[in-house]
Amino acid sequence: MLRRPVLSNAVISLTRTVEVTDERGRVSDVAIPAERPLTIYVDKRELVTLMTLGGAPEALTLGYLRNQRLVRALDDIASVQVDWDVDAVAVTTRDGIDDIESRTAKRVVTTGCGQGSMFGGLMDEVDSIVLNPDARLRQSVLYRIVDTIRTQPSVYKQAGSVHGCALFDAEGTLLYFIEDVGRHNAVDAIAGRMWLDGVRGDDKIFYTTGRLTSEMVIKGGQMGIPFLLSRSGTTQMGHMVAEKLHMTLLARCTGKHFLLLTAKDRLLFEPDQVDRSIRLA
Amino acid sequence: MLRRPVLSNAVISLTRTVEVTDERGRVSDVAIPAERPLTIYVDKRELVTLMTLGGAPEALTLGYLRNQRLVRALDDIASVQVDWDVDAVAVTTRDGIDDIESRTAKRVVTTGCGQGSMFGGLMDEVDSIVLNPDARLRQSVLYRIVDTIRTQPSVYKQAGSVHGCALFDAEGTLLYFIEDVGRHNAVDAIAGRMWLDGVRGDDKIFYTTGRLTSEMVIKGGQMGIPFLLSRSGTTQMGHMVAEKLHMTLLARCTGKHFLLLTAKDRLLFEPDQVDRSIRLA
Repeated sequence: MLRRPVLSNAVISLTRTVEVTDERGRVSDVAIPAERPLTIYVDKRELVTLMTLGGAPEALTLGYLRNQRLVRALDDIASVQVDWDVDAVAVTTRDGIDDIESRTAKRVVTTGCGQGSMFGGLMDEVDSIVLNPDARLRQSVLYRIVDTIRTQPSVYKQAGSVHGCALFDAEGTLLYFIEDVGRHNAVDAIAGRMWLDGVRGDDKIFYTTGRLTSEMVIKGGQMGIPFLLSRSGTTQMGHMVAEKLHMTLLARCTGKHFLLLTAKDRLLFEPDQVDRSIRLA
Repeated sequence: MLRRPVLSNAVISLTRTVEVTDERGRVSDVAIPAERPLTIYVDKRELVTLMTLGGAPEALTLGYLRNQRLVRALDDIASVQVDWDVDAVAVTTRDGIDDIESRTAKRVVTTGCGQGSMFGGLMDEVDSIVLNPDARLRQSVLYRIVDTIRTQPSVYKQAGSVHGCALFDAEGTLLYFIEDVGRHNAVDAIAGRMWLDGVRGDDKIFYTTGRLTSEMVIKGGQMGIPFLLSRSGTTQMGHMVAEKLHMTLLARCTGKHFLLLTAKDRLLFEPDQVDRSIRLA
């Protein structure tokens, strides 16, 4: 029997109002996204401090431990308790984490945000990832996803300056939508939710407002997801890793437009989808 | 006498062309930015792997060592030699780095990109930063900066998906412009250039295409820069740290528009600047 960890359900405000002055000297109030430290303690040992919006701290913590390969199974975790009074989360494992000292030391050579947070050990892992060869995405489903994101209520619409990530099923139904000041946090939090709900990536579609860089593609691959969509672009290494994984990258997704970059056979074109939009336009 | 390190001048292509397919099945070539690992070795010891565009690897390496407080003076570095054949840079110090083991171990608790790459030790440092109290920015200089960025040739215009950072003097003259796939790399490379040229931050203006998050504000503060401009927004922690530092944040800088967020007394309004734009519009 799968034992689910006991989770807190910590809630905190995601925006703050500040007074701004514009180019004419006019003063007004605008909302900006929250950003706060969350220090993860595992069995009372300090592991890492993440800067986060704070919308999904339990899922973020689980996804971070999962994507950093510090915990292999959800069942190994007994409890995840977030306390915003001290900006900390206490993770209790059932049996400790083997070899945590050396496995976190490895991360010294891997910081983040273009400063390599995952590249150290994880590029090796790419070789062992096999994505579902039968996964296909219909053009109409792609458009349904882009439209769902467009109309989704969000901190971004209120306050800007956050990245959003979302997971969709093969029919284009939204499963999770998570925003964070750090796009890696948003991905990690989705990984945490998938873990909690036992959702597999193998026929899912991942959407991000951020760029499809190597780190994003590697994380998507780790989660077993064959499709990565972005309204932004890609980079050389993201493109290269996606080709290697036979993962379908779709960049510049807005309205009816997109650029299909890799694993092109996974996309099922439906020409009437574009023609219809022209007739309506 | 200040001894300057011996630098390589490694050059490598910053974009790559890939074949894309659009929503109508039309195939074309587009440029995407390069992204490649650069592993920093200090005195033959592997320190970190950065994912970078590759436009300014020597300056990036120096700025990284400077901003991580691993090297205190430029004079401590004898040589910085980048070799793209092996995606590595060899840094030779004159006398070694004291205590490098424990100082890099600290970084275990501090990854990046919203995953806290600087927060560990550096938030403490904020308390000791004093920005030049006399620094002022004229509205006309602000507009000159925004216009210079708008017309600057860039990898972004060619290929998208990179962040740009720039340093301007008090008259709005461009000193440095650096792009990278990681915005922290772009900041670090500018810090490296400033170090090499003996440029102080105390009356300079820093421009970034990225958001004004806590990490950006802290790095700007470390570099002694009183003004941070962005065409994007800010976050709660970025705002808070800037208030603490009395650093002027200007967000949403496009055309004649901006939002002045903090240390408002440092901006000198020139109402005719806006009125003139209206008459011309």
